[in-house]
Amino acid sequence: MKKFAVVLSGCGVFDGAEIHEATLTLLAIKQNGADYEVFAPDIPQYHVINHITGEVMEESRNVLVESARIARGNIRNLTEYDPDRFDAIIFPGGFGVAKNLSDFAFNGAACSLHPEVDAAIKKTAKKRKPIGALCISPVIIVRALGDVEVTIGDDEATADAIVAMGGSHMEADHGEVIIDEEKLVFTTPCYMLDADIAQIFEGADNIVNAMIEYMP
Amino acid sequence: MKKFAVVLSGCGVFDGAEIHEATLTLLAIKQNGADYEVFAPDIPQYHVINHITGEVMEESRNVLVESARIARGNIRNLTEYDPDRFDAIIFPGGFGVAKNLSDFAFNGAACSLHPEVDAAIKKTAKKRKPIGALCISPVIIVRALGDVEVTIGDDEATADAIVAMGGSHMEADHGEVIIDEEKLVFTTPCYMLDADIAQIFEGADNIVNAMIEYMP
Repeated sequence: MKKFAVVLSGCGVFDGAEIHEATLTLLAIKQNGADYEVFAPDIPQYHVINHITGEVMEESRNVLVESARIARGNIRNLTEYDPDRFDAIIFPGGFGVAKNLSDFAFNGAACSLHPEVDAAIKKTAKKRKPIGALCISPVIIVRALGDVEVTIGDDEATADAIVAMGGSHMEADHGEVIIDEEKLVFTTPCYMLDADIAQIFEGADNIVNAMIEYMP
Repeated sequence: MKKFAVVLSGCGVFDGAEIHEATLTLLAIKQNGADYEVFAPDIPQYHVINHITGEVMEESRNVLVESARIARGNIRNLTEYDPDRFDAIIFPGGFGVAKNLSDFAFNGAACSLHPEVDAAIKKTAKKRKPIGALCISPVIIVRALGDVEVTIGDDEATADAIVAMGGSHMEADHGEVIIDEEKLVFTTPCYMLDADIAQIFEGADNIVNAMIEYMP
């Protein structure tokens, strides 16, 4: 059975992993006859956002502990990720990718990645295994791997940042998957476009399917 | 377009709404050509659980604010729920149903409901509109309406509590929906059984479909 490592960045679109993208990635993996393990880094969230008002709350939360809500407690520290045990790695989106896994939300094309995230991407690429990224997550793949072709939908500022980091950007619509066949990188826009939840599942299902097709 | 009110109880299986059940209910509604609005009561959570260790955390969180993570900010206070504006109401599961929407987790068959939850269920029943409940949520429907036939899967203690509250219990397997045609109550076990996420979607999709069929 093919096995995906799914990397989360918290629990909630504005300060963590986008919950629909994360959940529907897990669903797509299972429905396509594969299995998954969920990972997250054991680090503080950049901040906590009240998802009704958009305001910062005077709290601190941990990325691994909050991600465990989506994983129903079945989650592992990203330090334990070993690409030899998996057939692919995939990153759902959400601002947590740009605030916790990296500082892209603040530094754009000058961003850096959390070292464990950088290592997970690079180790997987070295093993020639598929790397998937939904929504805003393609920016961290480009930061780690450089010259790779991805999509984040049609947002110009983010596309410009991707180019500035050495990547190339293809526009894509709901559910479309851009495949860099050389680097084995798979990306789809999801909530980077104005989408409904059925369109998010279409994107998650298509990217998971495409990644399975490219597995040896 | 048929419209569902979806009532959440927080964000995370052990102290709030079960995230997969909530998300996949939203997906099933959209995929079946209907629409939804999300509601939750504006009350403190009973407690906050670390979803890795199962331990209580010294924090307080609000049910409406945390539920907004699943709803991506598009959520309303349950006090604003008006059954005339909806074709059905549905309750995903999670311990939040038994700890926040009611005290079933602590008082079993002697439980009481949060008054706004009780009112939402009773007002919907009075209008003869479908009421759906996943996982543990059937217990709050029985508490509100009394003599109604439901399933929570095959857990004997919970089934006994349902009978003690005046309801009747039918065993059900993955994806099965028990329909009380007189009371228009629809229930399915989801994570009350040992299930995977694809089975949760099967249950969510089947219950939403059944509810739509019974709409006038």
